[in-house]
Amino acid sequence: MRIKLTVAYDGTDFCGWAAQTGRRTVQGTLREAVRRISGEDVEIAGASRTDSGAHAEGQVAHFDSEVDIEPVKWARVLNKVLEPDVRVVSSTQMADDFNSRFWAKDRFYRYRFLIGQEDPFRSRFVYGQWSPLDLSRMRGAAKALVGEHDFLAYTEELGPGVENTVRTLFSVEVKAVRDEIWLEVVGTAFLRGMMRRMAGGLLEVGLGRRPVESIGQLLESEKRESLQWPVVLPARGLTLVRVRYGRHPRDNRGC
Amino acid sequence: MRIKLTVAYDGTDFCGWAAQTGRRTVQGTLREAVRRISGEDVEIAGASRTDSGAHAEGQVAHFDSEVDIEPVKWARVLNKVLEPDVRVVSSTQMADDFNSRFWAKDRFYRYRFLIGQEDPFRSRFVYGQWSPLDLSRMRGAAKALVGEHDFLAYTEELGPGVENTVRTLFSVEVKAVRDEIWLEVVGTAFLRGMMRRMAGGLLEVGLGRRPVESIGQLLESEKRESLQWPVVLPARGLTLVRVRYGRHPRDNRGC
Repeated sequence: MRIKLTVAYDGTDFCGWAAQTGRRTVQGTLREAVRRISGEDVEIAGASRTDSGAHAEGQVAHFDSEVDIEPVKWARVLNKVLEPDVRVVSSTQMADDFNSRFWAKDRFYRYRFLIGQEDPFRSRFVYGQWSPLDLSRMRGAAKALVGEHDFLAYTEELGPGVENTVRTLFSVEVKAVRDEIWLEVVGTAFLRGMMRRMAGGLLEVGLGRRPVESIGQLLESEKRESLQWPVVLPARGLTLVRVRYGRHPRDNRGC
Repeated sequence: MRIKLTVAYDGTDFCGWAAQTGRRTVQGTLREAVRRISGEDVEIAGASRTDSGAHAEGQVAHFDSEVDIEPVKWARVLNKVLEPDVRVVSSTQMADDFNSRFWAKDRFYRYRFLIGQEDPFRSRFVYGQWSPLDLSRMRGAAKALVGEHDFLAYTEELGPGVENTVRTLFSVEVKAVRDEIWLEVVGTAFLRGMMRRMAGGLLEVGLGRRPVESIGQLLESEKRESLQWPVVLPARGLTLVRVRYGRHPRDNRGC
């Protein structure tokens, strides 16, 4: 039986989503929790391979189980075993060919800048930035990122086997929310470091340290080599908010 | 020169406020930060000795320094040295006889119950409670705590030298705030464990496991011995929100 999990986590004390021997990862922690509950050695596939220190409100994963646990009850039994920094928000049965990664229609990420006073209750979840930011410049630059582009200049490093760096972003918004600025991006899929380097580029624009038009020029193969690529910001400001699924599986080529 | 600090901290990774050899405490961390900045070995006195795991939005402390740092700049220089889970919100010069503990007029504590879905972003700051709570019963019981009473039955353990267990509470409120219930208490001073045992008693009332009137009866010397004392809830739900100062020093006999 194929089970879909929606998972939230404070990523601060995890070495990212993807399982690594000897490290605490979200994927490894979930797999160990299933093993403790049902004795099964399962593969848990996630929609996004979030970075070390990045968070999720709505990561989606799936696995197969043969034991007699009602699909909706998996959330509760997993939460009894898991530590409080990772919670299964919901669990449900899916068709046997459902795939949390390949069926995903789009992913929604948020990067949070704190522009107000430093706050120990949010320091795990925001990137502090206390110089004034020019939001209209940031919004102007963000527009250039929407659409289908080659995001090579916005990757951190190319993972093994990643050749195609073309991705489609449906929306890139810069919002003022109380004493924070949120960069919210919805796209088919994201390259490694892409959200954090886009956040870095827009920050540089907001600080007046980079021309507005350079954000779009970095998408152009003939221009990007002569431009300075933006800084990659720390993962703690980044949250995978939601993964959406459509009626048909889609191959989104990545995480 | 006497400096007053207002300090916020996520208490999860501290063994409380009060310095203890070999343990990470807020008081010890601040003292070490001052030593690194000015080379001075200072005593840092706090308004409240918050428990291990309890938090503060507005703890107040004071110390004396002879170095040439502007009083308002202490906050900034301390924050450069401190880790992100403790922040100095502000610093200011006070009269040489100002005392953060003895001049405090009242203290405001909040205990947070999460009644909505478990949330990894709040698990360090709330106590999860997922059975329905009867707020009108809790509010009825809370009224009995207001005023000057002997709170012996609401202590965790008597600290050394504490003989007088009479304290005055100015307000005890039970509020519904989104998917949380907040117990907010303002009083002259609090005994060790007092907030967490009051929270435990009101929780038992809200769950229907304890009569409303028992909350007040526990304040009466002739009745409390025959009653079961409330459970002491975990410190993670507790935050010292604010300490207020009046125009005149007052001896509040404790923390």
